[in-house]
Amino acid sequence: MEVDKESVSTSINKWIKLNVGGILFMTSRETLLKDPNSMLARLIDGDSELISDKDENGAYMIDRDGKYFPPILNFLRHGKLILDSGLAAEGVLEEAEFYNITHLITLVKEHIQRRDQQTSVIDNK
Amino acid sequence: MEVDKESVSTSINKWIKLNVGGILFMTSRETLLKDPNSMLARLIDGDSELISDKDENGAYMIDRDGKYFPPILNFLRHGKLILDSGLAAEGVLEEAEFYNITHLITLVKEHIQRRDQQTSVIDNK
Amino acid sequence: MEVDKESVSTSINKWIKLNVGGILFMTSRETLLKDPNSMLARLIDGDSELISDKDENGAYMIDRDGKYFPPILNFLRHGKLILDSGLAAEGVLEEAEFYNITHLITLVKEHIQRRDQQTSVIDNK
Amino acid sequence: MEVDKESVSTSINKWIKLNVGGILFMTSRETLLKDPNSMLARLIDGDSELISDKDENGAYMIDRDGKYFPPILNFLRHGKLILDSGLAAEGVLEEAEFYNITHLITLVKEHIQRRDQQTSVIDNK
Amino acid sequence: MEVDKESVSTSINKWIKLNVGGILFMTSRETLLKDPNSMLARLIDGDSELISDKDENGAYMIDRDGKYFPPILNFLRHGKLILDSGLAAEGVLEEAEFYNITHLITLVKEHIQRRDQQTSVIDNK
Repeated sequence: MEVDKESVSTSINKWIKLNVGGILFMTSRETLLKDPNSMLARLIDGDSELISDKDENGAYMIDRDGKYFPPILNFLRHGKLILDSGLAAEGVLEEAEFYNITHLITLVKEHIQRRDQQTSVIDNK
Repeated sequence: MEVDKESVSTSINKWIKLNVGGILFMTSRETLLKDPNSMLARLIDGDSELISDKDENGAYMIDRDGKYFPPILNFLRHGKLILDSGLAAEGVLEEAEFYNITHLITLVKEHIQRRDQQTSVIDNK
Repeated sequence: MEVDKESVSTSINKWIKLNVGGILFMTSRETLLKDPNSMLARLIDGDSELISDKDENGAYMIDRDGKYFPPILNFLRHGKLILDSGLAAEGVLEEAEFYNITHLITLVKEHIQRRDQQTSVIDNK
Repeated sequence: MEVDKESVSTSINKWIKLNVGGILFMTSRETLLKDPNSMLARLIDGDSELISDKDENGAYMIDRDGKYFPPILNFLRHGKLILDSGLAAEGVLEEAEFYNITHLITLVKEHIQRRDQQTSVIDNK
Repeated sequence: MEVDKESVSTSINKWIKLNVGGILFMTSRETLLKDPNSMLARLIDGDSELISDKDENGAYMIDRDGKYFPPILNFLRHGKLILDSGLAAEGVLEEAEFYNITHLITLVKEHIQRRDQQTSVIDNK
């Protein structure tokens, strides 16, 4: 957490607001740029092919369900897949594919495969 | 994600706010028009038979439970039925019928049928 | 969904805000009047014996837990009892009794009875 | 629900806002005074030994987790312990002790004891 | 809960707002200083190596998931680990490590170990 003068002077631009389907998220530019091929990196990088509409609070608007967004953002933050038991993994897969985060897609698919094998073992007992 | 000039110039009208029973959702006009026979398409299309009241934030008001709305909106976004384990499928069916989304009604009914068959197998063991 | 002129002109009074223990709900006057004997019908009908305080947003204040309110409101909307698996049915019963919705009280009691019989079968296996 | 003139004239002071760890709750003075020995009764009674800070919305600030607060408030409202299945009973016990509600502490402890006995039966099968 | 004059005069600075990934929390300076080695104590102590950005409401901004923050804050409040059944313990571990709360890291690791041993017993039956 070393801080040089440049990063302090640009700290105003450090924080990004996202409005995902009506739910507000706040994160850092650094987190969103973690996977340069993702739609999120392209969104804040001003990719000319992506419309970057903002809401009245200056949050980038994304037409997706905010309920499945935390595992996406957390993966960019710390590189792991964390899934709460109530949340449908298929919903997270759908988002990982939408945001085009290749490594996360693989992780969620492996998770679903393991889960289905366990269920199938229980069913055959 | 090709963008022509026309869609950029109309980007202000691209986003729609919905107030579903007190919970705010934000989505695109394109998503709501996906199923032209649905009540949602008719709502934003200014169907003369549907009252389109808006709240103080300009959100269309719908007198339904917002808790069951995400699977509805997600189906219009990506065409799949995703159900979190805690949410009653019967609640989603009720909404799919209210919003008159024929394909989704079929999907939820199939889901409930599969679920009840599995439960019945467990009960008979 | 036929709309006559009178209902359009009174559309401003159509929507009611409720502040249930700090959580905001929005619904229609029509929904709240569904069960004329309920406390909710009496609340918006200006029943002289019920204090109808409103918060700073014009929402009727009710000193109850908003977490158990959705099944109450949904029953008035579509006449069915829908219970998510995480929510304690006893909590909904408590509210159905508070709001004095006779038919719903019966439905929740039947639900609890069925649930307890199933649990008892599992315990005796 | 009889209302005399005095209670109407003091209805402005009837409602109390609580900010529990960042989550807003709204309840009545009457509810908070139910258990006169509780910290909540002392808080709004202006107990000289308790600092009663308020946030910018006039809500009393309490440095606790708002997630475990609903069962506390509901107990004061209707005298029963209602626990949703996802919520850790230990979390509610911690709060019942913090707010010093003797009867509720007993109820939660009995609930935990019953739960642990059932689990232990399942483990020994 | 003894209060001397000094603490009353500084009560304005007693309360701290945190914006954790878009979710607002409110707590006391005292709670955040409980573990002096934690990142949270360093954050509000004005540690020169930590950028302390604030949002428009004066809340310290932290680029983490607010969903896993309650067990962190509660541990600082009362010293116990309380985990709701739906929440992934791995998500809490990730946060305990990020905030550098040594004792909590140990508690969560022990919890995960116990949980995995129980699951493994069930799998081998």
